[in-house]
Amino acid sequence: MRLARVAQPEGVSFVALEPDPKSPGEKVLAVEIDQHPFGEPTFTGRKWPMADVRLLAPILPTKVICVGKNYAEHAREMGSEVPPNPVLFMKPSTAVVGPSAPIKMPPNSERVDYEGELAAVIGQPCKDVPEARGTEVVLGYTIANDVTARDQQQADGQWTRSKSYDTFCPLGPWIDTGTDASDLALRTEVDREPVQESRTSLLVHDVAGLVSYVSRVMTLLPGDVILTGTPSGVGPLQPGQKVSVSIDGLGTLTNPVQQA
Amino acid sequence: MRLARVAQPEGVSFVALEPDPKSPGEKVLAVEIDQHPFGEPTFTGRKWPMADVRLLAPILPTKVICVGKNYAEHAREMGSEVPPNPVLFMKPSTAVVGPSAPIKMPPNSERVDYEGELAAVIGQPCKDVPEARGTEVVLGYTIANDVTARDQQQADGQWTRSKSYDTFCPLGPWIDTGTDASDLALRTEVDREPVQESRTSLLVHDVAGLVSYVSRVMTLLPGDVILTGTPSGVGPLQPGQKVSVSIDGLGTLTNPVQQA
Repeated sequence: MRLARVAQPEGVSFVALEPDPKSPGEKVLAVEIDQHPFGEPTFTGRKWPMADVRLLAPILPTKVICVGKNYAEHAREMGSEVPPNPVLFMKPSTAVVGPSAPIKMPPNSERVDYEGELAAVIGQPCKDVPEARGTEVVLGYTIANDVTARDQQQADGQWTRSKSYDTFCPLGPWIDTGTDASDLALRTEVDREPVQESRTSLLVHDVAGLVSYVSRVMTLLPGDVILTGTPSGVGPLQPGQKVSVSIDGLGTLTNPVQQA
Repeated sequence: MRLARVAQPEGVSFVALEPDPKSPGEKVLAVEIDQHPFGEPTFTGRKWPMADVRLLAPILPTKVICVGKNYAEHAREMGSEVPPNPVLFMKPSTAVVGPSAPIKMPPNSERVDYEGELAAVIGQPCKDVPEARGTEVVLGYTIANDVTARDQQQADGQWTRSKSYDTFCPLGPWIDTGTDASDLALRTEVDREPVQESRTSLLVHDVAGLVSYVSRVMTLLPGDVILTGTPSGVGPLQPGQKVSVSIDGLGTLTNPVQQA
C-alpha cells in the first residue's frame, strides 16, 4: 500500500493512493484514512482524484534519526573510513517538508549539499529490537534528502546545526508498505543530471541493523523516521535548481532550491 | 508562576503550584490549568494538595536543543577551548523524564556522567529572534541533567548516541516564569556531595544569545527546551546513587541512578 498525507479541499488527511477503478492503470485516487495510518487502517469513504490534492510529507515524525558514513564510497569521498558502529545524529521535526516544497538555503552558508537517502518509517512503539526482527517494526519506506550546510558541518564538528535548518529534511512522496528495501537502486539528479547512483544493498549497516542499533538507545515511536545514509556523489545545490531523489519502487522526491 | 505537570488521581494535568490560602507559607496546592500552560493560562477549578500528586517532567518538548562547551572551565576540563559559536546537539523527546524518575545506565556504557544545566522553555512559535528579544520568547526556566555516556561520546565523535538514551534528560521540578536567569547559582550534588558549583552569569553564550542563535537555524515551538550547557565538575554516576541539580529560585531536580 502507498500511504500519503495530503492537503485536500477541506483540510489535511492521511490517504492510501489506489488505482481508480474507473480507469485502472491510468488514474490514482487518494482514499482517506481515518485518523492515522498505523495498524490496520480504516477508511472514511471520502476520496479525491490526485489533481485535487497536494502531497505533503507523508508523516510528521516525533524524531528523525540519521546515520552518517553508511556507504563505504561516501565515507571515502568525505576523507574518512567507515566507522565500526553507525554514526547517529538527529534532525528536528521542524526540518521536515514534503515533495515540491522548496529547500531554503540559509544566508549564512556558502555551500548547501543534497544527500539522497532511503528512509524507514517506524510503525509501532519499540525498544531493544533484535536485529533479526528489525524490519518487523518498519511501517514502510520513503525517500529523504538529508540536506546539509557542508561548510557549517565542517566548522562545527557536531553536525546538528548544519543539518537542522527548516526545509532541510524533504520526505516523500509517500510511504510504501510493500517494498523489500534490501536492494533498491537509488539515484539523485540535479536539474535532471545524475549525481548519485547506488543501491541500498551497499548500505554498510542495513535497515534491520540500524533499527536494532537505534532502538537499543532510544524508544522508537510510530512515525519516527530513520534516514539510512547517503551514497557517494554528494555536491552543492544552487538557488533555482531542482533536486530529485528516486528509489526503485518508491517513486521520486523532487524539491526546488531557493535562497531563504 | 510555577508551572508543573503532574500525575493526579484521575490523570495527567498541567498545574500552577500556588500557596494554599488556608495555610499560607506552609502548604502548596497544584491548581489545574485548562489544556496547556502557554499564553495566559485558564484554570479548571480543580486543585490538589501536593501529597496527592506526583511531579512529572514539566513539559513534553517537540525538541530538546543542547549546547556544548558553554562554560569556559568545563571546556577546559574536557581538554578543549570555548568554540566561537555555540556547539549544538539534540536529545530526543523520548529521553525526557521527570523529578524522581530513575536514570537508567545502559549496559553497554562504562561511564555515565551527570551534567547539571539551566534549561529555557520556549513559550511561543518563533524564528530568527533578534538577540535583544531572545528572552521574550522564553516561557520560563527549569533544571535539566544532560546525562551522557561519556565513553560513547568519545568513541563516536558525534554526541547523539551518548546523550539520547531513554531517561538521559531529567527535567524539572517545575517551570518558573518569574525568574531572571542571568545570574543564578547552580549546584550539582551526588549523594549530597557537591560536585558542580557555578553561576549562570558564567555562561559563554547567555540565554538570549542561544535562543537567537538556535532560532536562526530552526523554528522553535511552544514547549521546546534549550539546555544551556554544563559547568565544570562533570563526573560519573554509579547505580544506587542520587544526583541532584539545584538552581537558585528554580528548586532541585533529584533523580536516582539505576542499572538498566
